[in-house]
Amino acid sequence: MSLELFEQLKSGDRAALAKAITLVESRSPGHQIQAEKLVQLAMQEPADSLRIGITGVPGVGKSTFINSFGSRLVTRYQRRVCVLAVDPSSLIHSGSILGDKTRMDTLAALENVFIRPTPTGGHMGGIARKTGETILLCEAAGYDTVLVETVGVGQNEYFADNVVDTLLLLLLPDAGDELQGIKRGIMELADMVIVNKADIAEPGILQRSLNDLGNALKYLTPKTPGLTTPVLQHSLNNPEEEDRILTKLMQLIEARKSSGSFAAKRTAQQMEWFKEALRSNLLDSVLNNAQAQNYMEQAYPNWQKGSTTQQEILNSLITLWRKG
Amino acid sequence: MSLELFEQLKSGDRAALAKAITLVESRSPGHQIQAEKLVQLAMQEPADSLRIGITGVPGVGKSTFINSFGSRLVTRYQRRVCVLAVDPSSLIHSGSILGDKTRMDTLAALENVFIRPTPTGGHMGGIARKTGETILLCEAAGYDTVLVETVGVGQNEYFADNVVDTLLLLLLPDAGDELQGIKRGIMELADMVIVNKADIAEPGILQRSLNDLGNALKYLTPKTPGLTTPVLQHSLNNPEEEDRILTKLMQLIEARKSSGSFAAKRTAQQMEWFKEALRSNLLDSVLNNAQAQNYMEQAYPNWQKGSTTQQEILNSLITLWRKG
Repeated sequence: MSLELFEQLKSGDRAALAKAITLVESRSPGHQIQAEKLVQLAMQEPADSLRIGITGVPGVGKSTFINSFGSRLVTRYQRRVCVLAVDPSSLIHSGSILGDKTRMDTLAALENVFIRPTPTGGHMGGIARKTGETILLCEAAGYDTVLVETVGVGQNEYFADNVVDTLLLLLLPDAGDELQGIKRGIMELADMVIVNKADIAEPGILQRSLNDLGNALKYLTPKTPGLTTPVLQHSLNNPEEEDRILTKLMQLIEARKSSGSFAAKRTAQQMEWFKEALRSNLLDSVLNNAQAQNYMEQAYPNWQKGSTTQQEILNSLITLWRKG
Repeated sequence: MSLELFEQLKSGDRAALAKAITLVESRSPGHQIQAEKLVQLAMQEPADSLRIGITGVPGVGKSTFINSFGSRLVTRYQRRVCVLAVDPSSLIHSGSILGDKTRMDTLAALENVFIRPTPTGGHMGGIARKTGETILLCEAAGYDTVLVETVGVGQNEYFADNVVDTLLLLLLPDAGDELQGIKRGIMELADMVIVNKADIAEPGILQRSLNDLGNALKYLTPKTPGLTTPVLQHSLNNPEEEDRILTKLMQLIEARKSSGSFAAKRTAQQMEWFKEALRSNLLDSVLNNAQAQNYMEQAYPNWQKGSTTQQEILNSLITLWRKG
């Protein structure tokens, strides 16, 4: 069943790809077993791909950037583009602001493009792994450029950096002082800073933003040792600016491929996803069954009173699990 | 050692309280065993306390609200106030924007106040539990009002709601349309919506915000069944507004205490923290030791090739752990 689905996916069947991703996102044990097989198969496919994260605060224009930049990648550079929108912080609200295909209408209308909105019913701990596994499936389906969109707030950028090769941070020209406090760590995660909506800023404000950011980045720890993180501008419907962004990006990628750090990062990421899968698998099998839940609820009052310790309860749980 | 520290903490020794919280936040197994004992002791203390979450986007004025409102609670209502600033999304950047005592200078200068900034080196999965345990310690130390400040973006509000009795959502008078997409789920989590910085808004804009929010809340699922979530305004140095907020809040609390939902929520929260502790304990003891890490790295190539499954690797890991 997994093998057949995988062959369909490889042949370019978009419905098969969508179905495979749904299996990866599923919490059902049966689906997880199938997903594990699909991922194992996908890993053995050679992939010369590029994984780009795009992050920034709500309203910075991530979707419109991806719509425009992604379309250019397809029409001018013959890339096959996949867009994954992921929001680790959106698990609570059902109405997601990400992956809105209507905001990416130009891109969505092109061939060789696959857009996957935010998964619902996600699970915080596993989202890096599940995104990583989804990327492997998309690459096995022939997409050579994976754009991962995340709303940028704290933890999310860290998450994004753990699943992509390079991270683009989008900022507004007049980003106020208010966010300076959280910008430093995030700026240090970015491989490139892009001042978005450059066309609708007053020229003076745009220039000051570019200068200020350029100056600030000189004092921060650069993402690539020895290279100050570049600051570029982006306007809608400005192919020259987009080509400049792509050129800078490819220079960065080539330098990393030469130094070996590109491959090393991917290997480290995959090892992390694997360990995360094991962790999640362990929790699911030991603690998340009904028997274990019952046992924990019974043990709670004894723990509360101080008549037993968590380690004793855990030992009992594992004994219970091994019998079951 | 834990017992002695607990007695010091109970007697009002602030250094002892700070030390106990550090033990709860620590990832060291030795510290965790001590922390578990402290929490068990704290749970057995009777506490008639109020746990209030304060959330809102960066720049909404959470710290200044807490500085002003918290001071009023102390000086006018003789509450003993503890402020915990928690940012589950800030694990990456070292410079935190929360818990800045300089922004809470009035409050910090009062007696009967304890301010604890964001813990560093946190662990995403355990932060609700660790905050919950910290709350128990503060209450055992005699603080009857715990204010939990979180930067409000998606997951964080959900987190906050899991550790407090009531959640106050702060908004700006001119909160733009941009955030409407994420506001719904978050508004439904709030027990009270507060339009902050009301004094510096144009009166027309303030009134429109209050009306718009009031109307919007009528169409959302109310946090308390049968009660439309109240919208109030807050200005700096306006005791009347703060008294109104507190009065509304106490009415809500009293209604919940009568219906039993107040106690039920706390019990459910504590059960969750307990289960979270068990989950974290299980992972630490099985997967996070050096032997297990080595084994996983050795097993990875075999899994990648498809010659073994995750379940087989897990079984081997648990066997390894039980022997060790």
